[in-house]
Amino acid sequence: MRKVIYGGACSLDGFLAGPDGALDWLHFSKDVQEVMARSWASIDTILMGRKTWEGAAGSGGGGAMKGIKSYVFSRTLKSVPGKGVELVTGDAGEFVRKLKAEPGKDITVMSGGNFATFLLEAGVIDEIGLNVHPVLLGSGVPAFLNPGKRVARELAECRQLEGGCVLVTYRVRR
Amino acid sequence: MRKVIYGGACSLDGFLAGPDGALDWLHFSKDVQEVMARSWASIDTILMGRKTWEGAAGSGGGGAMKGIKSYVFSRTLKSVPGKGVELVTGDAGEFVRKLKAEPGKDITVMSGGNFATFLLEAGVIDEIGLNVHPVLLGSGVPAFLNPGKRVARELAECRQLEGGCVLVTYRVRR
Repeated sequence: MRKVIYGGACSLDGFLAGPDGALDWLHFSKDVQEVMARSWASIDTILMGRKTWEGAAGSGGGGAMKGIKSYVFSRTLKSVPGKGVELVTGDAGEFVRKLKAEPGKDITVMSGGNFATFLLEAGVIDEIGLNVHPVLLGSGVPAFLNPGKRVARELAECRQLEGGCVLVTYRVRR
Repeated sequence: MRKVIYGGACSLDGFLAGPDGALDWLHFSKDVQEVMARSWASIDTILMGRKTWEGAAGSGGGGAMKGIKSYVFSRTLKSVPGKGVELVTGDAGEFVRKLKAEPGKDITVMSGGNFATFLLEAGVIDEIGLNVHPVLLGSGVPAFLNPGKRVARELAECRQLEGGCVLVTYRVRR
């Protein structure tokens, strides 16, 4: 079955972006390039919350990517323009469960903690991958909100990346 | 100069304790014992916020420990009973700065994010050590609150501990 993977670069205090969406603390390196290249090669589907999609669309992205199918989840949007992008207005958990049963490569969740926490709560996220940066941002877009229950994971990988970053990967505990 | 060290075991979403102070997710192991033994051997002073002190005192702790001097920081308490425990009601940052200049072993901060964040803001914390457990708690006692500014750190150590825990140590970036 296809895996659903959530994650990204975050601060030591768990923010995906700082105040006003600040991303200037992100450290790019050959290590990060390799991790991202490997990650992109393993997926063919992107799941986005509305806010992430609007942010991507606003900055000229969010549209079709070759070989990638994107789904935008929203209860308020009526349509999303763009080829290769589909709006999902129904139950996200149920939709993702069906998607996982279809043939294909892995699925990545691009979102802040809001949508991701909803998917965690629905139990459809298989893997969490974080590139923890050595900085406290204090506020911003949190990677995790309260899923309302304890979610146990299993550490799959832990290694230091260039620039004092730590890559950690967690799987669902079986 | 003596180092001031803050940290402890925390969840992947950055909580030192779960809802209602839950600590049943803590994983003890030989690795953890070794880390703690090394840590205790390096310090002779404990800094506590009021809440931590009240919690420790309430469970029969918080009193004198052989060779350890404890300071409780509070603007509301009038006195703290117990030998080897001293109440500090003045400016915590200034007090800790003076303490660091005195001869002695290292200093550990035992507190939730509240008091620790205040000390981070005051710029007196030299090292942050976290034993990140593979669990999302959702809510509880946060390890970090908003220091109101970006605090850059330098990764000093990163290694996997038994039970899928990750030990990370950060120093002040010089």
